[in-house]
Formats: sequence, C-alpha cells, structure tokens
Amino acid sequence: MNDIKWSKKEKSIARAAFSKAYEKECNQIIGKLKVKSLKLSSPDDIWELHDYLSEIRKEMDEKYDYRYSVLILVFSYLLKQELLNLDDLEGLSLDKIDKIKSLASI
Amino acid sequence: MNDIKWSKKEKSIARAAFSKAYEKECNQIIGKLKVKSLKLSSPDDIWELHDYLSEIRKEMDEKYDYRYSVLILVFSYLLKQELLNLDDLEGLSLDKIDKIKSLASI
Repeated sequence: MNDIKWSKKEKSIARAAFSKAYEKECNQIIGKLKVKSLKLSSPDDIWELHDYLSEIRKEMDEKYDYRYSVLILVFSYLLKQELLNLDDLEGLSLDKIDKIKSLASI
Repeated sequence: MNDIKWSKKEKSIARAAFSKAYEKECNQIIGKLKVKSLKLSSPDDIWELHDYLSEIRKEMDEKYDYRYSVLILVFSYLLKQELLNLDDLEGLSLDKIDKIKSLASI
C-alpha cells in the first residue's frame, strides 16, 4: 500500500481519527486498570498487573502505527474493533474507504 | 559473609522474617498502586504506571535476595527500612544480630 497518496486534508482527517481511536482504547484500558487495582491483594497480583501492562504496551505500540504505508490496514483493524466508525473517516477518498471497509470485513 | 553458618532453626527464623518483610513491602506497594490507579486519566498515565511497576519489580528482585551469603546484608537493609524489627530476628545468634544492627546503623 506504499503507492496510496494522501492529500493534506486526508492526512488531517486520518490523524484525528487515529488519535480518537487511541484515546478511546486508552480510556478502555484505564477502566480495566482501575478495576484490576481495586482487586489487588497479594504480591503475585502486583507482578501480574505488571505483566498485563507490558503486554498491553507491546500490543498498543504495534497496533498504533502511523505510517501512511500501513494506515489503511490500521484503520480497517480499528473499524473492526469499533474503535472507529465510518463517520470518523469521512473526507477520505472513496477508494480508501472501500479498502478499509473491505479489509475490516475479513 | 560466605563463612557464616546458619542452623536449621535459624534458617526457619530467617525465612519467616524475610517473608514477613516481603509481604509488608508488597502491601505498601499495593496501597500506592491503588492510589495511582484512582488518578489515572490520560494515556501517558498508563505508560508511567508501567514504568513505575518495571522499576519496582527490578528493585524488589534485587532487594529480596535469599542467599545465605548475603542475608545479613539484606536483613540490615530491611531493618533500616523498618520492614523488619529486631523481634522478627529473635533466635538468630547474637553474632548475626550484632552484624545486622551494625550494618543497619551505617
């Protein structure tokens, strides 16, 4: 997908959608962390929380990859996970929207 | 301190004191984690919590070293940090107690 061109306007829309999904997922993680923290009671719970955060950080780093060469794929994944909806992508070319929808449906 | 001998009874006392200090410090960490979690609000807070836990885990792994060759030093540190008191070490030889107290006072 290296040959896909992004206009200045599309880059702005993409950045906003990307940030919105990232914030939304981080808020979900924060909710889970608050629940997990309330349940902390033993030493092992501390290290399990650390392992959980290490895993989450790795996943988030891999998932939120803002390179235009992979952004269609990233958006398709975020759409599938309901971290974005099509309204967030309004303004992107129909070709891009079709690719995103198509990949999200797989 | 490799030449220090530990009797079976002393090993039992040492293990109990070591575990008590570890539990106490873990409970302090759990308290801090609960407070930190309540304050989580932004994505950066998540990664700061992860960094905090990575640091704590490294410190705890280094600190709670149950090798008889270093145990006098470990106990002196735990005593200094008030994670242990002298009553917890009752039953160890006076020579060991003196070494622990002496190192804790440095």
